[in-house]
Amino acid sequence: MEGVDHLAFERNKAQFDVDAMKIVWAGSSHALEVSDRMSRLVASDPAFRKDNRAMLGRKELFKNTLRKAAYALKRIIELRLSEEEASMLRSFVDEPAFTDLHWGMFVPAIKGQGTEEQLKKWLPLAQKMQIIGCYAQTELGHGSNVQGLETTVTFDPKTDEFVIHSPTLTSSKWWPGGLGKISTHAVVYGRLITDGQDHGVHGFIVQLRSLDDHLPLPGITVGDIGMKFGNGAYNTMDNGVLRFDHVRIPRDQMLMRVSRVTREGKYVQSNVPRQLVYGTMVYVRQTIVSDASTALSRAVCIATRYSAVRRQFGATGGNPESQVIDYKTQQARLFPLLASAYAFRFVGEWLKWLYTDVMTRLQANDFSTLPEAHACTAGLKSLTTSATSDGIEECRKLCGGHGYLCSSGLPELFAVYVPTCTYEGDNIVLLLQVARHLMKTISQLGSGKKPVGTVAYMGRVEQLMESRSDVQKAEDWLNPSAVLGAFEARAARKSVACAKNLSKFSNPEEGFLELSNDLVEAARAHCQLIVVSKFIDKLQQDIPGKGVKQLLEVLCSIYALFHLHKHLGDFLSTGCITSKQGSLANDQLRSLYSQVRPNAIGLVDAFNYTDHYLSSILGRYDGNVYPKLYEEAWKDPLNDSVIPDGFQEYIRPMLKQQLRNARL
Amino acid sequence: MEGVDHLAFERNKAQFDVDAMKIVWAGSSHALEVSDRMSRLVASDPAFRKDNRAMLGRKELFKNTLRKAAYALKRIIELRLSEEEASMLRSFVDEPAFTDLHWGMFVPAIKGQGTEEQLKKWLPLAQKMQIIGCYAQTELGHGSNVQGLETTVTFDPKTDEFVIHSPTLTSSKWWPGGLGKISTHAVVYGRLITDGQDHGVHGFIVQLRSLDDHLPLPGITVGDIGMKFGNGAYNTMDNGVLRFDHVRIPRDQMLMRVSRVTREGKYVQSNVPRQLVYGTMVYVRQTIVSDASTALSRAVCIATRYSAVRRQFGATGGNPESQVIDYKTQQARLFPLLASAYAFRFVGEWLKWLYTDVMTRLQANDFSTLPEAHACTAGLKSLTTSATSDGIEECRKLCGGHGYLCSSGLPELFAVYVPTCTYEGDNIVLLLQVARHLMKTISQLGSGKKPVGTVAYMGRVEQLMESRSDVQKAEDWLNPSAVLGAFEARAARKSVACAKNLSKFSNPEEGFLELSNDLVEAARAHCQLIVVSKFIDKLQQDIPGKGVKQLLEVLCSIYALFHLHKHLGDFLSTGCITSKQGSLANDQLRSLYSQVRPNAIGLVDAFNYTDHYLSSILGRYDGNVYPKLYEEAWKDPLNDSVIPDGFQEYIRPMLKQQLRNARL
Ligand SMILES: Cc1cc2nc3c(=O)[nH]c(=O)nc-3n(C[C@H](O)[C@H](O)[C@H](O)COP(=O)(O)OP(=O)(O)OC[C@H]3O[C@@H](n4cnc5c(N)ncnc54)[C@H](O)[C@@H]3O)c2cc1C
Ligand SMILES: Cc1cc2nc3c(=O)[nH]c(=O)nc-3n(C[C@H](O)[C@H](O)[C@H](O)COP(=O)(O)OP(=O)(O)OC[C@H]3O[C@@H](n4cnc5c(N)ncnc54)[C@H](O)[C@@H]3O)c2cc1C
Repeated sequence: MEGVDHLAFERNKAQFDVDAMKIVWAGSSHALEVSDRMSRLVASDPAFRKDNRAMLGRKELFKNTLRKAAYALKRIIELRLSEEEASMLRSFVDEPAFTDLHWGMFVPAIKGQGTEEQLKKWLPLAQKMQIIGCYAQTELGHGSNVQGLETTVTFDPKTDEFVIHSPTLTSSKWWPGGLGKISTHAVVYGRLITDGQDHGVHGFIVQLRSLDDHLPLPGITVGDIGMKFGNGAYNTMDNGVLRFDHVRIPRDQMLMRVSRVTREGKYVQSNVPRQLVYGTMVYVRQTIVSDASTALSRAVCIATRYSAVRRQFGATGGNPESQVIDYKTQQARLFPLLASAYAFRFVGEWLKWLYTDVMTRLQANDFSTLPEAHACTAGLKSLTTSATSDGIEECRKLCGGHGYLCSSGLPELFAVYVPTCTYEGDNIVLLLQVARHLMKTISQLGSGKKPVGTVAYMGRVEQLMESRSDVQKAEDWLNPSAVLGAFEARAARKSVACAKNLSKFSNPEEGFLELSNDLVEAARAHCQLIVVSKFIDKLQQDIPGKGVKQLLEVLCSIYALFHLHKHLGDFLSTGCITSKQGSLANDQLRSLYSQVRPNAIGLVDAFNYTDHYLSSILGRYDGNVYPKLYEEAWKDPLNDSVIPDGFQEYIRPMLKQQLRNARL
Repeated sequence: MEGVDHLAFERNKAQFDVDAMKIVWAGSSHALEVSDRMSRLVASDPAFRKDNRAMLGRKELFKNTLRKAAYALKRIIELRLSEEEASMLRSFVDEPAFTDLHWGMFVPAIKGQGTEEQLKKWLPLAQKMQIIGCYAQTELGHGSNVQGLETTVTFDPKTDEFVIHSPTLTSSKWWPGGLGKISTHAVVYGRLITDGQDHGVHGFIVQLRSLDDHLPLPGITVGDIGMKFGNGAYNTMDNGVLRFDHVRIPRDQMLMRVSRVTREGKYVQSNVPRQLVYGTMVYVRQTIVSDASTALSRAVCIATRYSAVRRQFGATGGNPESQVIDYKTQQARLFPLLASAYAFRFVGEWLKWLYTDVMTRLQANDFSTLPEAHACTAGLKSLTTSATSDGIEECRKLCGGHGYLCSSGLPELFAVYVPTCTYEGDNIVLLLQVARHLMKTISQLGSGKKPVGTVAYMGRVEQLMESRSDVQKAEDWLNPSAVLGAFEARAARKSVACAKNLSKFSNPEEGFLELSNDLVEAARAHCQLIVVSKFIDKLQQDIPGKGVKQLLEVLCSIYALFHLHKHLGDFLSTGCITSKQGSLANDQLRSLYSQVRPNAIGLVDAFNYTDHYLSSILGRYDGNVYPKLYEEAWKDPLNDSVIPDGFQEYIRPMLKQQLRNARL
């Protein structure tokens, strides 16, 4: 059977150029070439195998991760990989590790907040991994409210040092990845105190462990915080706890780009604008959005392939049963997720552009777009990660019982993904920030300040309050301007309604708290509009390849109309569309699903994932599911022996009715 | 700190009699007394401790489960517990085990499908656990489509035996709990073949393992199917794979209550109506609904208590920060789940009554209510388990980062719960069954057949198509008849719309497939109506205790109005309510949340769960969260040593820039 492609008949159905679509998905031919090469490199190297991860105990699992991280670096050095290649390779190793925080948070924090001098000192060390760093912000008692952190960092002018201290139990650092067992250094956030005055939260580079024997330095208590959700999953990461007992660091380990403490202990703001810090947040969240499309597309790829393999019911006259992918309910659950994966891909691409744009402007001292860029990345982080978490679990359910097996790959994908909804900003807290930005935008409309970027449509608010959709038949919903009009009107009206209700409160803060649920809904409507409009923008580009653009148009319509249907209450209650128009959208959706159906396998093949990366028997490229599920089962440790451990002590006495005298 | 109740100030706020509510939740004073006693018995016995479950390898974990199951039975015997007490005790042990299938599926299957003679022979053996049984229906290739099972059971008249055989790989039994390592017997479903004729799927009692040495009998291949979602969770269960190579069993091991095979090999239907089998399904699904309320209430209890402990933002002038439970967004996510837990409790109670009613009627040869009861339990199983799965994960997110730790209890609760959406009927497949029943009901309206039970409202369909809600101010939504009217109208109109669209198809089956998504929505609307109406019915009863009934009224309104808001599109597009009325419902919801707020802790205390049963540091009764989280962290195996395994081999060479020569 080996070598047979059980999904060939599906692949033959595709009406578009899958290879051209691969380029669109990857972003460019170059990106495709690199990711293809790196993913194969990892997949073909037995050192990166991941099949038994779900069965390993914590220690073994962790040790294995250390091995892979070291081996990956070794290969990177040996093959002289570029930064781009190296980072791709790391991501295809596909196992959370201390290196994620080192490269993803520690290095960027120093880059973003360090002075030139500090960069010169610390970056080379970090880049060669002569030191390993983590990002220690969250405490046992404070996560979302960063300004409430309790760790103190007190300047001692006598010795020209800072004294870092954990004054309470709740001030213990808690969660930082890589902290528990591996990091030699951390960027630690704490309240800066000079001369008895509290200057709020600042970042400091702190050495935690000896570079000789790796033991924690004096005054430092550090360890792992214990098991997390799922088998394998994030348990490969040493999220840690850290307490300081009056630990001293030299003054020059405060990250001093934005503000600094002088030798005399004076607190001084530099002339670098504070907003620069937001640049880093925009950067980090932009990567989260593109990771969302990756995670969701993996789940969708697995569920789509398996839905084409799985047959259930509907056998007629000698014909095999129906593939479950042919059921309309299956399509209505699966295809909007497929469309979302593509939508998030393109909005992620756009965010990458936005980040570059913002940084260029910052260099030129233009801060005008920053608040909007900040709100929009916050909102898109929230929207895409929530949708992806729910989407992965839906994909698991779409696989029926077999989706519940670890060998389906979906349980681990879910468990490892969900914290994304919480870290880098709790998703609800982020939507409230977006809402604040929206309310501010509206309040400034009168002042003649023209809203820019993704809130530009608010500048047309008067027209949007009046507009009526002119959709008359189902196909009219294929018109991007019909869709955009409805989504803009809905978003504008939800926001305006909130602003009106807010204005009834004498205390605006109180009003904000009281109406926060409506505000969250308005923010969500705004974010969905962004995704829809960026997908539509993408389709304005020249996209080569037979049938590629056409299919993307279908997916774009599915994304939009699915959400229109899901949030029909919004559209109807604000009078943006009529019930009849809503029902036409639903009709159109049905026909769009039929258009996707023959192309479904092609559309997930276009992600170009190796079987290693998917690590799912249900999602195998060749569709050879059942024999492999069967083989895999026997590898479970419980199958090592025919009679299980414990049978003699516990089950035999039960069967033999001798429990009374058994010693259990 | 031990002994201090950190939530006492919250408990003092309660405006109702928590003890009286405990009785309402438990169902009766008697039920409360028994469950209280049993849960304490388990909680106080160190043999039932469960703290290290997440860290155990599969074998250890499984062995531990065998020990607990045996010990539980020993205690049941020693204490001469009644059946009611024994089953409570088992449920408080709170660990999936082979015993669940033995008591929950094997015994009921024999009871439901066995003849008097068969009961006499097999039940005593099973009841004393001289044999241990499982329920082997699902195969690698077939779950939902039971009629598609491939296992053959061929009668051999020469020896008066059946020959059981697995003709294909996909015919391997796959999933049955307790099968993998423990069961000595199984009820096996396969295609009955006599004289070359296929009579479809029937059940047979088959011995799998020797009662002497526990080895699989000749011709039987059996094992565990491997790891499943989550740490601990369902990995305590030996879901199994089973293949038959021409295995022979005596003829009298066919379950022959409904049909049988004679000595000559003739297939004969008995005069017992086939519908009896549905009785068992109604029974099993009814227990699933009440288990849904249990699982959801556990998650809600954890999230509610922790939301009262957790403070974030909003510190003013020396006052501590706000408890996150005071945020309206937190309330709008949490309180509808609290209301759902109560709603599911009451609908579960009602289903218990329905089951008794159906059985009484069956005894009197009255089958008239059976189809409706069957559809309604199917629908409620689907609705409550989907809502509970999503609800548990939402509760986890409501706990922020700390919810991601195993010590929060929520990851395991989720992982162990989610398959409920798939087993005993995939939730979408079930809704499609409900939809079929609804369409049938509508098609029979003309014929003068009066719809009964939960579809009785369809009898008023003409009125419901015309009705308009007369809600004028927010408080009008507190009126049960306003709520009921809106939910009935919505359900009726969704169904009627489907029926109309279906009638446009010349082939009704094709129409059903094409419109299945609309049908699923109609079925969901119908099921939500049932939950709402049973909650309202419950409130017609006399409910003693200060403030108890009032609070239940609040919860009932929250359940209804939350869903009205969530599915506003349904209500508006069908013209059941106006946008203005929808917005009034939303206003009312806000005020209802405020009424719950001071009672929130009391309402979850009323579940009367022990800390052992919750197994959550975040959900501790005393709210002493932080010190216990801190303590717990250090128990992780990774903290056994300061320097982790693997450091010397993998990390040191990295730090020392000696990777090139390292052997990894
Ligand atoms: C896997 C993982 C990895 C992590 N890695 C790191 C790391 O490397 N370094 C690091 O420093 N941290 C890390 N964290 C911590 C993470 O950043 C925090 O968990 C996150 O910021 C959320 O904060 P919290 O846990 O305090 O949630 P909380 O703020 O306590 O949230 C609890 C609930 O309160 C609600 N809430 C809070 N504030 C408000 C408000 N103002 N209005 C309405 N509702 C509110 C939230 O919506 C949520 O429902 C990690 C966390 C996880 C889970
Ligand atoms: C933890 C666990 C324990 C179990 N225990 C047992 C046990 O003890 N004994 C036992 O016999 N079995 C057991 N099972 C098996 C269980 O009963 C099946 O998994 C279940 O019946 C679902 O069937 P399936 O897996 O074949 O799903 P499938 O039917 O393959 O479902 C796959 C997808 O197809 C869709 N689909 C299927 N048919 C249709 C249709 N007609 N229309 C539209 N969509 C459709 C589904 O909605 C789903 O999205 C267990 C399963 C699990 C996960």
